[in-house]
Amino acid sequence: MLGAGGGGDTYTGLLMALRAVGEHGPVAVAPLDQIAPDAVVMACGLVGSPAVADERLWSGDEGAVLADAIAELRGAAVDAVMCFQIGGANGLLPVTWAARLGLPLVDADGMGRAFPGLRHQAMRVAGIPASPVVLTDGRGDTVVVRAADDTAAERLALRATASFGGVCAGAVYCMTGAEARRAAIGGSVSRAVQLGGDDGVAGREPLFEGRVVDMDRDSSGAAVRGSATLAGAAGDSGRQLRLELQDEFLLAIEDGAVRAAVPDAICVLGAESGEPVSTEALGYGDRVTVVAWPAPAVWRSPAGLAIAGPRAFGYDVDYEPIAVEVADARR
Amino acid sequence: MLGAGGGGDTYTGLLMALRAVGEHGPVAVAPLDQIAPDAVVMACGLVGSPAVADERLWSGDEGAVLADAIAELRGAAVDAVMCFQIGGANGLLPVTWAARLGLPLVDADGMGRAFPGLRHQAMRVAGIPASPVVLTDGRGDTVVVRAADDTAAERLALRATASFGGVCAGAVYCMTGAEARRAAIGGSVSRAVQLGGDDGVAGREPLFEGRVVDMDRDSSGAAVRGSATLAGAAGDSGRQLRLELQDEFLLAIEDGAVRAAVPDAICVLGAESGEPVSTEALGYGDRVTVVAWPAPAVWRSPAGLAIAGPRAFGYDVDYEPIAVEVADARR
Repeated sequence: MLGAGGGGDTYTGLLMALRAVGEHGPVAVAPLDQIAPDAVVMACGLVGSPAVADERLWSGDEGAVLADAIAELRGAAVDAVMCFQIGGANGLLPVTWAARLGLPLVDADGMGRAFPGLRHQAMRVAGIPASPVVLTDGRGDTVVVRAADDTAAERLALRATASFGGVCAGAVYCMTGAEARRAAIGGSVSRAVQLGGDDGVAGREPLFEGRVVDMDRDSSGAAVRGSATLAGAAGDSGRQLRLELQDEFLLAIEDGAVRAAVPDAICVLGAESGEPVSTEALGYGDRVTVVAWPAPAVWRSPAGLAIAGPRAFGYDVDYEPIAVEVADARR
Repeated sequence: MLGAGGGGDTYTGLLMALRAVGEHGPVAVAPLDQIAPDAVVMACGLVGSPAVADERLWSGDEGAVLADAIAELRGAAVDAVMCFQIGGANGLLPVTWAARLGLPLVDADGMGRAFPGLRHQAMRVAGIPASPVVLTDGRGDTVVVRAADDTAAERLALRATASFGGVCAGAVYCMTGAEARRAAIGGSVSRAVQLGGDDGVAGREPLFEGRVVDMDRDSSGAAVRGSATLAGAAGDSGRQLRLELQDEFLLAIEDGAVRAAVPDAICVLGAESGEPVSTEALGYGDRVTVVAWPAPAVWRSPAGLAIAGPRAFGYDVDYEPIAVEVADARR
């Protein structure tokens, strides 16, 4: 749900997490306030193309390679694992790594959803440096990037990712427990579990229900880009909703007015399955329900919107917050 | 001279070295047998495109960034600096770094000449791992590559180099003094100084003297490739020599017979200036003298020829060693 149409497929990641938990026992999910201030928190996940990631199997040992490198760089062992992105596959792979390492998983993440870039991290807004970025290909090869400037760190890390074949495992914005309490988005794992449960979407007013009547999508570049037009379901057939997408669904526009906008999470669900549909999988004629979740407060701040608002993605519209319909524990 | 037509221009490197020596005092050149067995030897130089390197100025502080990173990775400070390539600019930049660091320069290198790749290192033949490879852009940003396999290390390092704009400063195949004595090519700095002196080429029989009558050169790819045809000078005008080139001059062929072949160093000198002419600068009509130097023993071994013989560069000819005309102290 928090993939917002992106973040990569969860199927393989879920199988891996279930297997790791079966072999190594359950993973403790620790709230931020239970993480010691001087603990070393390893924020981690897959870096690169979700499309390539879907076709790549992992040994599960990447977390140990990353943790060893972080421990060497910091001179202190990793105490807890954190997803840097809760949406999509990256909400699951760190579960596998935590299980195999015997470490707790912090109930937090760096995005509160899926975003395309390493720059879309709440830790960046809080001034935590991205460096050192540790990357591994899953065969034990590592690349460590250190740059004073996060933009340079991201550029160098993405080149290294390309040299690893387009996707790799990475640790970035690693920090202390005290820094995580200040900078990370709390409650993300609990929230993903809650949204994925039977009552996840229940009681939430959909943004739109209808059918895809036009798709304009280009998957040839580094990112999926385009738009989808939905026509309202029976009884509502005069309405049209346009979804703008770039890996994730970023804007929902009806009659020229913004109904929902990034950084709020826009999620398209199959009308019958109730399962999220990715920007890549959405097709002409699909009957869908569009829902949206409010972004964590960090993204609604001016500094957050500068990184993750509609204009940061090239849309000439202002951010219009959706109503916060449910009590939201996230910062 | 040992650039063999490649290795990058020495002009800027020489100015930088002279300035660093002027500011910090002369650099001690230490023979391999004066390096303590447990010393940390940092083999270093520029990685990437010599053409880009020629257009790039360096702060001179890159050596300190590399040495700091190596010290952190090895848990021991760098004791001596070594050129990984004595030919071209890379025979000079480590002089600047040694002067600024106040460290001795080992009288040795990893190539004994210029070669295009990080793989063309005597340390590789001796089984010293290339990793960790430390790269810096000269602004303090670093990338550290660790791979069990040197081929992967080179691939990852070259991608990082591309992300640094095509050229960067690097330390690779770092080792102990004991390893350097076993693996590095001794006497390289002394030899470069001797060849560059007034008596450098004196008494050496030229391979050929003549004029360029045909140039077929493609500089559009990552490497310069092509061939040059020379016609003999007056009194010898019936003779023709063909030089095959890829960044460096790699083959000299006369009447279908190999006169000199890589890994022996083939050097083209301006007939009047006596200065080496690079594969990029050689032009139609140029009057030149071709000389050659025997390769160090490590490159003449089967393992060395597998990396640096004519077939390693795609030529379907066997290596024909040139006669060793002068006493050669190199291994």
